[in-house]
Amino acid sequence: MKLDEIAIKGNLDREAFAAAEGPLRTELLDLQQRLFAADFGLIVVIEGDDRMGVNELLGRINQWLDPRSLAVNVYDRPGDQARDRPFFWRYWRDLPERGRIGIYMDAWATRCAAARLRGEIGPRHLDRRLADARDFEAQLVDEGYVLVKFWLHLDKKESRRKLEAARKEAEAYWRLEDEDRQILENYGKAMRVAERVLDQTTAAEPWLVLDSSDAQFRDLFVGRTIRDRLRTALERGAPVASPRPDARPVGRGLLRDLDLSASLDGDDYDDRKDRARRRLARRVEQMRRKGRSLVLAFEGPDAAGKGGSIRRVAGALDARDYRVHGIAKPSDEEAARHYLWRFWRRLPGTGKVAIFDRSWYGRLLVERVEGFATEAAWRRAYDEIPSFERQLVEHGSILLKFWLQIDQDEQLRRFEAREETPWKRHKIGDEDYRNRRRWDDYQIAAEEMFAATDRREAPWFVLPANDKRLARILVLETIERELAARLRRR
Amino acid sequence: MKLDEIAIKGNLDREAFAAAEGPLRTELLDLQQRLFAADFGLIVVIEGDDRMGVNELLGRINQWLDPRSLAVNVYDRPGDQARDRPFFWRYWRDLPERGRIGIYMDAWATRCAAARLRGEIGPRHLDRRLADARDFEAQLVDEGYVLVKFWLHLDKKESRRKLEAARKEAEAYWRLEDEDRQILENYGKAMRVAERVLDQTTAAEPWLVLDSSDAQFRDLFVGRTIRDRLRTALERGAPVASPRPDARPVGRGLLRDLDLSASLDGDDYDDRKDRARRRLARRVEQMRRKGRSLVLAFEGPDAAGKGGSIRRVAGALDARDYRVHGIAKPSDEEAARHYLWRFWRRLPGTGKVAIFDRSWYGRLLVERVEGFATEAAWRRAYDEIPSFERQLVEHGSILLKFWLQIDQDEQLRRFEAREETPWKRHKIGDEDYRNRRRWDDYQIAAEEMFAATDRREAPWFVLPANDKRLARILVLETIERELAARLRRR
Repeated sequence: MKLDEIAIKGNLDREAFAAAEGPLRTELLDLQQRLFAADFGLIVVIEGDDRMGVNELLGRINQWLDPRSLAVNVYDRPGDQARDRPFFWRYWRDLPERGRIGIYMDAWATRCAAARLRGEIGPRHLDRRLADARDFEAQLVDEGYVLVKFWLHLDKKESRRKLEAARKEAEAYWRLEDEDRQILENYGKAMRVAERVLDQTTAAEPWLVLDSSDAQFRDLFVGRTIRDRLRTALERGAPVASPRPDARPVGRGLLRDLDLSASLDGDDYDDRKDRARRRLARRVEQMRRKGRSLVLAFEGPDAAGKGGSIRRVAGALDARDYRVHGIAKPSDEEAARHYLWRFWRRLPGTGKVAIFDRSWYGRLLVERVEGFATEAAWRRAYDEIPSFERQLVEHGSILLKFWLQIDQDEQLRRFEAREETPWKRHKIGDEDYRNRRRWDDYQIAAEEMFAATDRREAPWFVLPANDKRLARILVLETIERELAARLRRR
Repeated sequence: MKLDEIAIKGNLDREAFAAAEGPLRTELLDLQQRLFAADFGLIVVIEGDDRMGVNELLGRINQWLDPRSLAVNVYDRPGDQARDRPFFWRYWRDLPERGRIGIYMDAWATRCAAARLRGEIGPRHLDRRLADARDFEAQLVDEGYVLVKFWLHLDKKESRRKLEAARKEAEAYWRLEDEDRQILENYGKAMRVAERVLDQTTAAEPWLVLDSSDAQFRDLFVGRTIRDRLRTALERGAPVASPRPDARPVGRGLLRDLDLSASLDGDDYDDRKDRARRRLARRVEQMRRKGRSLVLAFEGPDAAGKGGSIRRVAGALDARDYRVHGIAKPSDEEAARHYLWRFWRRLPGTGKVAIFDRSWYGRLLVERVEGFATEAAWRRAYDEIPSFERQLVEHGSILLKFWLQIDQDEQLRRFEAREETPWKRHKIGDEDYRNRRRWDDYQIAAEEMFAATDRREAPWFVLPANDKRLARILVLETIERELAARLRRR
């Protein structure tokens, strides 16, 4: 598309605007109040080549809406925390709660275009980011968020006129920045980049491209669009997320056929453990020096020995380098957002290791089996989780996923042992016995999960864990081996 | 004190350690489990000149404790987010929830000492930071946190021996860093700095200085100390915070005697408003260029017009520069921590403006009057809030606090008006009428609050607000005037 051609253009004089503004504000505040009680959030993306206009518009929206349920996020070049993490980390971090409105200004579209325009990324890199943008937007919409996207455009003549005027402006409202000059000085190229960005990010929600030269028209159009989208969403309730095509993969029997009889004797264990720990320590140090990071996910039946294995891994590492995240019931700040938010916010920085004791795969295990998530919701995870993991790996993180498998007799033995060990008693509750009754459902869910989410860059390692010591050794040795292979690879 | 002299020293052989470790772990995990249900948190500070030992010890603690209710925070030199904010921002951000254990490694004591040793700060600056450290620790203890502080020490000979060994170490366990070398090369000076730091941070909780040369003795001593402190705290329930001396100040009548009759006519309003907005915009831009930041707090009776005034201020600013925080009921992540945590986490970065619609003063208003906080708790706020504000200002932020005052008749008129305005109806509830019944209590609480917390660097501005337009003008003009004065001042 050509921005000059598709931009929605209109004019409105002060009087007409003044007459329309009052009623609109009333409606907006009323809808915002009703949204507060709704089970979905509104995300308004405001970007454009008219960055001054974006700023004027945002000022207006701040006037119109009640700040108490509004979060405005404005993005500049990423700081060091953001640079340490995948590109979309900032946008995930700022996700609004359900019932709230989140404004994203100068967000991913602008950031992608600006990076390309400055030559920080090449066309192929840009396309990869735009693919991530499509995934991100799709995940928001699927989760029930209402997404509205505005792009404010000025043709070359207007653009120059406006920036010239700003230079003279008495009010220091607007700060001219390199990005503004860059847009003007390479207007043609800037528009081509912008058009490429917009063209490739229309899947989940199309852009509304506005000619920004008439501020009254622009602001009223935006306000009314938000009003209409909100009203529609409130009237039909939360947008119904489209269920994904049946992703049920093959891969049955993997767990059933796993040989759990293998075991390890004591001396063997100590030797192999010490060797594996030393090697792992060296390998992680090497990873750190290379500026990579490591994410480990542990899943498996209750009492499979996840905690013990994690302690052995942690024991091999420099305490400054890793963090263990036990994943239980989400906090209310977490429950009020997309289920992946709590994992995005815990991603490790450069050189660090994040160890998850239970993980985002809960969506495909407990949430599926216990019915905490609708079928449409957990089926979407077959797309959402690979997208999340791909962004992690493309950023340079190394991701390894472990499933520790025991059989039901062993689990029962361990439950009983726990009840006899005072300091382990807390680890066992009725819940465990309930999960136990659903043993087969969990096994089926797990096998489907492996088949659907085991990929070269994010592999599953299904380990026999009836013998705790063997499992711990296998975990240590696997991490070391895979780290070595992946550090060589790039 | 001389570290070499006061360090607790002991020896323990492998066998004795092995014999003692098992039972200790059992006890620790049991206590950790009981803590999980308790209404206080445990904070373990592990620092020392033996940074390698700190790291070894932390590895051990990670082995001993259940990671699911343990948060380990390791601090290095601050990143750009932290540099933009007061020194203690990072430590507030990482505060554990009640029922959890938070480990602080290489935290404020080490960071202060290292900065001084590198000559980044002078002795006076160091002393100021140590005063903040005392406040921080006192606030944690007062809030009910159990605080345990270990300093691991090595004499010069041991220190050299250990670092030499580490250089040769086959296992890449430890990374020698500048800080380690600095400590060794200026051992004498480093110890004097460390001693100064420790001497000045013993008020809320004394340091346990351990000779770190025998790892078994050290780790067992630490484990047992944590066990004993936890057990004691659990047995007598949450530590009873010491109430502060009666801080009831004079200052009665301030609100009662305020002249609310003043008003403004329409033309006057428009002129003054436009002028004030232009000036404020320029002033904030000047603030931004100087790398300062601005924090605005708005308080006052319901319907006093806080929201409207805030919108007028925001309307004068570049939307990229400010954020409005409406302070209502805390989220559960907030409720589970010190009440100031939610405000620390919202502090603005350099060049930004944070506007609080209701603020930390809720502690001295609604929480006091409605009895949500004990008397001991809200009286402590007379110390806690000034300390919080002082750190903000010393960091370079400008802090202005506004009270908009209306009388009861005006409030009733506005309540009724709201009930007739559909989109304002949501702003009025039974609660408001309840608060109204407590009018006098709120007025008394407010007057005491002004007298106790109105200071040159963090002033209160009590404005007549029966005339909305006058109040808005006064807010705009006051901010501009005070900004100008404070930007000149440094």
